[in-house]
Amino acid sequence: VLKVRILLMGFGNVGRGFCRLLAEKSDYIERHWRLEPRIVGICTRTRGIAYDPSGIDLDRVLSAKDNIESLGNPGSPRFPTQEDVVAGGDYDVLAECTVTSTDGRGPALEYMKEALSRGKSVITTNKGPIAFFYKNLHELACRHRAGLLFEGTVMAGTPVFSTSVNGLAGSRISRFEGVLNGTCNYMLGLMQSGADYDKALEQAQKQGFAEADPAMDVEGMDTALKAMILSQVLMGTDVPRPEDISIQGISHVDPEVLLDAKDNNEQVRLVARGEKVGEKCRISVKPTPLAADHPLYNLPGAVNGLVLSTDTLGPVCLTGAGAGSKATGFALLHDLLSLYDSRERCRKGM
Amino acid sequence: VLKVRILLMGFGNVGRGFCRLLAEKSDYIERHWRLEPRIVGICTRTRGIAYDPSGIDLDRVLSAKDNIESLGNPGSPRFPTQEDVVAGGDYDVLAECTVTSTDGRGPALEYMKEALSRGKSVITTNKGPIAFFYKNLHELACRHRAGLLFEGTVMAGTPVFSTSVNGLAGSRISRFEGVLNGTCNYMLGLMQSGADYDKALEQAQKQGFAEADPAMDVEGMDTALKAMILSQVLMGTDVPRPEDISIQGISHVDPEVLLDAKDNNEQVRLVARGEKVGEKCRISVKPTPLAADHPLYNLPGAVNGLVLSTDTLGPVCLTGAGAGSKATGFALLHDLLSLYDSRERCRKGM
Repeated sequence: VLKVRILLMGFGNVGRGFCRLLAEKSDYIERHWRLEPRIVGICTRTRGIAYDPSGIDLDRVLSAKDNIESLGNPGSPRFPTQEDVVAGGDYDVLAECTVTSTDGRGPALEYMKEALSRGKSVITTNKGPIAFFYKNLHELACRHRAGLLFEGTVMAGTPVFSTSVNGLAGSRISRFEGVLNGTCNYMLGLMQSGADYDKALEQAQKQGFAEADPAMDVEGMDTALKAMILSQVLMGTDVPRPEDISIQGISHVDPEVLLDAKDNNEQVRLVARGEKVGEKCRISVKPTPLAADHPLYNLPGAVNGLVLSTDTLGPVCLTGAGAGSKATGFALLHDLLSLYDSRERCRKGM
Repeated sequence: VLKVRILLMGFGNVGRGFCRLLAEKSDYIERHWRLEPRIVGICTRTRGIAYDPSGIDLDRVLSAKDNIESLGNPGSPRFPTQEDVVAGGDYDVLAECTVTSTDGRGPALEYMKEALSRGKSVITTNKGPIAFFYKNLHELACRHRAGLLFEGTVMAGTPVFSTSVNGLAGSRISRFEGVLNGTCNYMLGLMQSGADYDKALEQAQKQGFAEADPAMDVEGMDTALKAMILSQVLMGTDVPRPEDISIQGISHVDPEVLLDAKDNNEQVRLVARGEKVGEKCRISVKPTPLAADHPLYNLPGAVNGLVLSTDTLGPVCLTGAGAGSKATGFALLHDLLSLYDSRERCRKGM
């Protein structure tokens, strides 16, 4: 059994979902993967840093109410800041799930660079750094023979990258079309049934879908970041420049569009489209009426979907959970297992 | 660049689709995978055996009209039978795409066993042997450190196994629901629009969907074999025994059922369901009305779909091509690349 030491950056919904899965599935993971993942450090913005090279007790940290520092090992090295842990801590994998920034810059990016430069693998659900700095991070990972996986950046743990990069290996993807934001999906559903924007937003917030500040979701930036990642990873394009991207959110949808769609038995969804043009990608994000036979017509609530146009199979469509603590925490678990797995099981045809 | 020598068993639609893709994509495969796949032998039932250790010219063999023996190398070893090539030929990978048998026994199974026993990897689109002898073949592959991949046995090259085994690694799948036969899907569509069974079958044959002997498709056996494979590979169950499987095809669908479904805005599809019960799996195959919000409601023509119930993400749905020379040939290409790939690219996060 191989011990894997994980440093967890961020202990919000995603980080907690990940820890819960590790606790729940530890026997299963040991039996099937011969792995013993241990969280050796948890860094939070407001609740301190817990560090224990022999592994933090997950049940205790999950039920802790406030500062978690005391759950570390008092005899272990002290790290005054999160940067210090990343740069000096003893770990194998950095699991990064802090808050994202819309330009990709900020502490999360620096953590990832530092870890990769030390030859530590990085798994992350953080969209910004991957959307803007995928190439740099990927090169850094290759140079230091480290892994870089980010399944959770698009459609939570629904295996978008695994399916397209491994499953479609040998195919070329020339175009994609996705419904990638559950909040907008849910709100547009309500708006098409007659609710106005404010009412729909209120309802989404009540349901726990939308954040208190919903701008990232409703203005389309969350969807655009995901489309930027998809275009680079699935189609090998350069980082999209601002002039290659057009974004229109759902906060100013013409009520006529919603009514017309309803009359035509169409469903309006916030659709991200990406198309490869040479080495570049043209990306658009906008509310789009979809006909009843469109593969993304049928997406209840927070379910997301992605259609890939391939040269070998025609369209391939994947739908599944697009958000949630467990579903996104699973993305990190999946990435972790992929780092230590894959070849052997592939060869064995399992 | 690594040379990979492939022995191809069967040169029907699938084998030809595979060869066409290899010819089309050879530069791409060399550039991205540092692989040079070469077909060193092609075994056919009625058109002879071509064998050339230095590689058969794919363009010539694809345009050959009858016996292909002369396309081999006259100076190379002679193999009187297909068995002899499998047992004595010099190759790295056996690509098996001969006709399937409904009990899994027959020459294809023997070819696979022989190749695996020699430590050669096997890639196949042949359902019968995997449906009935997956465990044995898998054990044989492990024992001889060979690969065994069979993406093309279910939903052509649409990456069902890659997505579920690798992409959902760490999840448990407890149930699945699939529309896995394009012919039945197409015919039921026509029947629901008023065509009778014979008319629908005639139309499917005209479109090239159904075989001259359509029994495997319309009686549900093709779907049942696929469900047997899914249950073992995705849920780790034992080989389903006959008493665990109930099969009802589409040749005797009650017209009332079709009419009722139409009235309710439902779509009747041949649905395979599998459910894990302990180490066993209960499988049913039968025409089933699906409501408009069911993820498998919207499947045009030969498109297949599969919904997996997971403990981490809830339902995950994958739809895509379920048949066709190129789509199934791609399954073999995908399996080939997986054999020689995977770990490195996973680690690099590509």
